[in-house]
Amino acid sequence: MSHSRLPFTPLLESLPATIPFVGPEAIERRRGRPFALRLGANESAFGVSPRAAVAMREALEHLAWYGDPEGHDLRGALAERLGVGTDSVCLGAGIDELLGVVVRMVAEPGVAVISSRGAYPTFNYHVNGHGADLHLVPYRDDRIDLDALVEAAHARRARLVFLANPDNPMGGWHDANAVRAFVSRLPERCLLILDEAYIEFAPPEARWDIDLADPRVIRTRTFSKAHGMAGARIAYAVAAPEVVVGMSKIRNHFGVNRVAQAGALASLEDPDFVASVVAEVERGRAEYAALAAGLGLGALPSATNFVALDTGDGERARALLGALEARDVFVRMPGVAPLDRCIRVTVGTAEERAAFARVLPQALAAVDSARRV
Amino acid sequence: MSHSRLPFTPLLESLPATIPFVGPEAIERRRGRPFALRLGANESAFGVSPRAAVAMREALEHLAWYGDPEGHDLRGALAERLGVGTDSVCLGAGIDELLGVVVRMVAEPGVAVISSRGAYPTFNYHVNGHGADLHLVPYRDDRIDLDALVEAAHARRARLVFLANPDNPMGGWHDANAVRAFVSRLPERCLLILDEAYIEFAPPEARWDIDLADPRVIRTRTFSKAHGMAGARIAYAVAAPEVVVGMSKIRNHFGVNRVAQAGALASLEDPDFVASVVAEVERGRAEYAALAAGLGLGALPSATNFVALDTGDGERARALLGALEARDVFVRMPGVAPLDRCIRVTVGTAEERAAFARVLPQALAAVDSARRV
Repeated sequence: MSHSRLPFTPLLESLPATIPFVGPEAIERRRGRPFALRLGANESAFGVSPRAAVAMREALEHLAWYGDPEGHDLRGALAERLGVGTDSVCLGAGIDELLGVVVRMVAEPGVAVISSRGAYPTFNYHVNGHGADLHLVPYRDDRIDLDALVEAAHARRARLVFLANPDNPMGGWHDANAVRAFVSRLPERCLLILDEAYIEFAPPEARWDIDLADPRVIRTRTFSKAHGMAGARIAYAVAAPEVVVGMSKIRNHFGVNRVAQAGALASLEDPDFVASVVAEVERGRAEYAALAAGLGLGALPSATNFVALDTGDGERARALLGALEARDVFVRMPGVAPLDRCIRVTVGTAEERAAFARVLPQALAAVDSARRV
Repeated sequence: MSHSRLPFTPLLESLPATIPFVGPEAIERRRGRPFALRLGANESAFGVSPRAAVAMREALEHLAWYGDPEGHDLRGALAERLGVGTDSVCLGAGIDELLGVVVRMVAEPGVAVISSRGAYPTFNYHVNGHGADLHLVPYRDDRIDLDALVEAAHARRARLVFLANPDNPMGGWHDANAVRAFVSRLPERCLLILDEAYIEFAPPEARWDIDLADPRVIRTRTFSKAHGMAGARIAYAVAAPEVVVGMSKIRNHFGVNRVAQAGALASLEDPDFVASVVAEVERGRAEYAALAAGLGLGALPSATNFVALDTGDGERARALLGALEARDVFVRMPGVAPLDRCIRVTVGTAEERAAFARVLPQALAAVDSARRV
């Protein structure tokens, strides 16, 4: 029986066999050698809160039980901290899953969706996967171009816009006033996903108070970054109750695992731990900036747990990525020009940063001497 | 800004705000009192393999890292045990998630999908959520009616059929020959989800060798039941490689958490543990059958980790469910006639079974004395 006899939808048939990110494990298998430094996926180098570790070990004792599909305790704790109602919080198995749910609420063939060229590819994956028309606007000066997003949203009569603030992969941010003004200019019937995966690392002026008066704004936040729980798969959306009701019509109710719920709740109750992670990340960003300066590279201002190091041109950055991989260092880089002048390096532990500081000059020298030949 | 100004698709607007199952925690919150016996969600009473417990505690140490999106190690181990290629295995965060992916591959408005009235509601949830036309056929003699499924598939020109074997909520099964004959009679362009969540508990004659020659058959299996890992959220589909490619076009690649992957791999390497669980479940089923017989109730033959106890009529079953809840026992029951003559009781530990054997006669007596008034 041939493939063409499978009854897939025309949309599914039209999709490429793709994966938004190739995991570091897959790269290691291809190389036949593990990485010594894993600084490419913006995973936390600082582990989890000791309280979360205890809570998760305890949760393992009850692993035979499904996690609460309503996520009652965690949603309650989040709502209290955020000053919103529990009915404004929706849990998910990572922001990736939440993006898929929100996209599915509005996306279908003929619907326009807006993001930025070089921004988070998993969002694009979901938009394409639901057959909507994805329109990408360029970054401006290595930051998300809010004006361009608004203009495209109006021009295309978009129903959904994606904005990560702080931004991945460049690390930049807009302050809350700029985001507020941006939202006020969006079309009336257009949702905004405001992805705040890195918000804990951002300066206070980048933090926009939760405001549910405008149901168009859907925030996504995660325990994968500052809380160090990427492997646990837990994140949440904050939105107006009518949006959360919509999400609950299609979400995978039993999808958030029990250990993650317990760990997230405990981590939330340990703000000092997160503050210590943020402080260490700040030190690391400064170290990376100094390292870059010493090598004649740029370092973009970052409000995240990574730094985009500017090599000046895409060819040099790609060669540097390869030279680092050859030296067992995993980093990533933006996929499109002009962002692809940069490599994106996660802030590691002090030891990892020291190791990176030893390897980077060697890799850069190898690249530049090869380029001169 | 009113709800109607949100740009949801007409499909989303048309969907009810529903949840396939209300979790026991939600029922406890409503009651204001915890359950003493949790025998309603077919969760394992026998914990996880000691090897899995060790592996998961170790995996917690690396929780800051995303799990391998390709699930390479676990898929490889599964493929080896199943005698298929790794490219025939797709991981998911529970069968619920995999059902959603498969449904999405074929379902759209105008597409017919077939299941059985009273069968797994989460499948229906996904079909409705993708706007396909769901057609349900009745059970026959408390078992899935394979003939009726085939007839409906042809009559409706269906593209997808759902069959759980063994079945939930009744616990019955069809032997492999019957399933093989059933598959051979399905329409050519019609997929079958053969949900084998409970296959470990089934007699050998219910087990159908994995055969990938027919790409229409997609099996789903889980670590939630015999492996005792429902709270970890990990399951897999086994299907022809072209089907797995289709799933990978839309699945949430980073959705399966790291702890679950490690635990599942270790549990797979401990077949003695699973065998001990299956043996204890067999003892428990026999105990429930004897208990039922002593009370004049029926006990349906079961190839699962639960037993459907037949009270004779729906009103009595619903009253019994309430009387058990009043005595702090959580069980569930089928939602539709004629299956709703039964209550569905998960096999607990020996202690839990003994406790249930004390409570059930009291609850039944209370129900019947109230009914006589």
